[in-house]
Amino acid sequence: MQQTNVKRLMLDVRIWLSQGAAAIRQQINLPLQVTTKSGPNDLVTNLDKSNEQFLVAQIRKAYPDAHIVGEEGFGDQVTDLKGLVFFVDPIDGTLNFVKQHNDFATMIGVYEDGQPLVGAIYDVMADQMYWGGPELGVFENMHQLSRPADLHLKDGLFGMNGPMLAANGYQMAAVLKHSSGARIIGSAGIEFTRLITGREVGYVSQLAPWDFAAGRVLAETLGLKVGQIDGQPVDMLAKQPVMVATPTVFQEVLDLQTHTAD
Amino acid sequence: MQQTNVKRLMLDVRIWLSQGAAAIRQQINLPLQVTTKSGPNDLVTNLDKSNEQFLVAQIRKAYPDAHIVGEEGFGDQVTDLKGLVFFVDPIDGTLNFVKQHNDFATMIGVYEDGQPLVGAIYDVMADQMYWGGPELGVFENMHQLSRPADLHLKDGLFGMNGPMLAANGYQMAAVLKHSSGARIIGSAGIEFTRLITGREVGYVSQLAPWDFAAGRVLAETLGLKVGQIDGQPVDMLAKQPVMVATPTVFQEVLDLQTHTAD
Repeated sequence: MQQTNVKRLMLDVRIWLSQGAAAIRQQINLPLQVTTKSGPNDLVTNLDKSNEQFLVAQIRKAYPDAHIVGEEGFGDQVTDLKGLVFFVDPIDGTLNFVKQHNDFATMIGVYEDGQPLVGAIYDVMADQMYWGGPELGVFENMHQLSRPADLHLKDGLFGMNGPMLAANGYQMAAVLKHSSGARIIGSAGIEFTRLITGREVGYVSQLAPWDFAAGRVLAETLGLKVGQIDGQPVDMLAKQPVMVATPTVFQEVLDLQTHTAD
Repeated sequence: MQQTNVKRLMLDVRIWLSQGAAAIRQQINLPLQVTTKSGPNDLVTNLDKSNEQFLVAQIRKAYPDAHIVGEEGFGDQVTDLKGLVFFVDPIDGTLNFVKQHNDFATMIGVYEDGQPLVGAIYDVMADQMYWGGPELGVFENMHQLSRPADLHLKDGLFGMNGPMLAANGYQMAAVLKHSSGARIIGSAGIEFTRLITGREVGYVSQLAPWDFAAGRVLAETLGLKVGQIDGQPVDMLAKQPVMVATPTVFQEVLDLQTHTAD
């Protein structure tokens, strides 16, 4: 195992996200080149691509031995988690970026031999950076976050996505009914920031590794639970239904998967 | 018809909302007295009540002949819309206020003989005031908003509420399917601000007059359409399913109500 300088790495990651976001902010009101990927609402813009290229270039320069998993394909073909692995999401919530011009995030999560090391989620338009790791604690800008209360489902808001709720996937109608209410934000990164600040008690969505890698580092550091919807550990190299929740809510939602009567 | 001084009224409304919000901000991190109304997630706090009392007192002092419709019952029993009527929502999105400490609004809408005169929606934690009326135009703080593009459903995000989507009320599953995506924010006031800034193309929810009175003034001033989900005009003295949307989306959603095949 490498002896990574975690504080240097953490500052590198935060500065790169800041530098990349400056270009996004400058260009957000110019005409975007928007193209679709898997469907009409799976968008990618020139700024997703240019920001990933920028972030990947910084990582390669500073950490030439590391491997990179990037959403837009400028990283490596990563098949195992040995050594240092960077997960890069250049714009999480591209639909919000294009349609709302807010509620999107840029994110980097770094793992060493498969273990969470540091993560950062940058809410670009709000200029709020959520960052940290197991050795550092978790911060919102320069305000250190404390561990969110281990609330029950009935006492908190639950983040979902629209098609999953409409189709009652993973018993989301029952999850909604047993919670204080549902929220749909449209960005996994922003959802994770709501969990770590105690604003929501759970969130479920179909996520790729770059969608949850940074959030997982921060959430687990603060005592939240991250796993697949069947209770299995997440796979850092696959797309899967991921849940992040307070430990109590995590178990309550697992129980709802097998008790479908209500 | 009274000769109301619209500019004086507009400034009065904005200053009262600002003064009331100062108290909310000061007390948001103190223990709240939370009680329930119609159900476990229909909350009211001591700050909903104290802010409505404050706003009602200011209105009565400055406009003694006006009538007041207030969410928490400190207004009048209003049975017609003659003269000047103030609709007061002291905290819209109380569940967000309690659970998230953001994404809630304070709102006042003023009508004269049933016609929209001025409205203001204050996103308290973001310190963003959306205000205006037919004689003034609409502003976000001191930035004048232009008319949002008359987009189609397929080109924009649509605001809903969770139980309505889960139960497919008013064909919300089809609305979702034909849109770019669904968002659930949990505050009618914040939803209206997303419509008037062009971030969403439509929003449907079951709303009371204080939930939509201010938003209706701003939305209609900017060429958006506000009506019941069956296309009828809204009733300013009843709770009802209200839609606000671009003119094109309004018609598309009406069409989906009668063509349920997909």
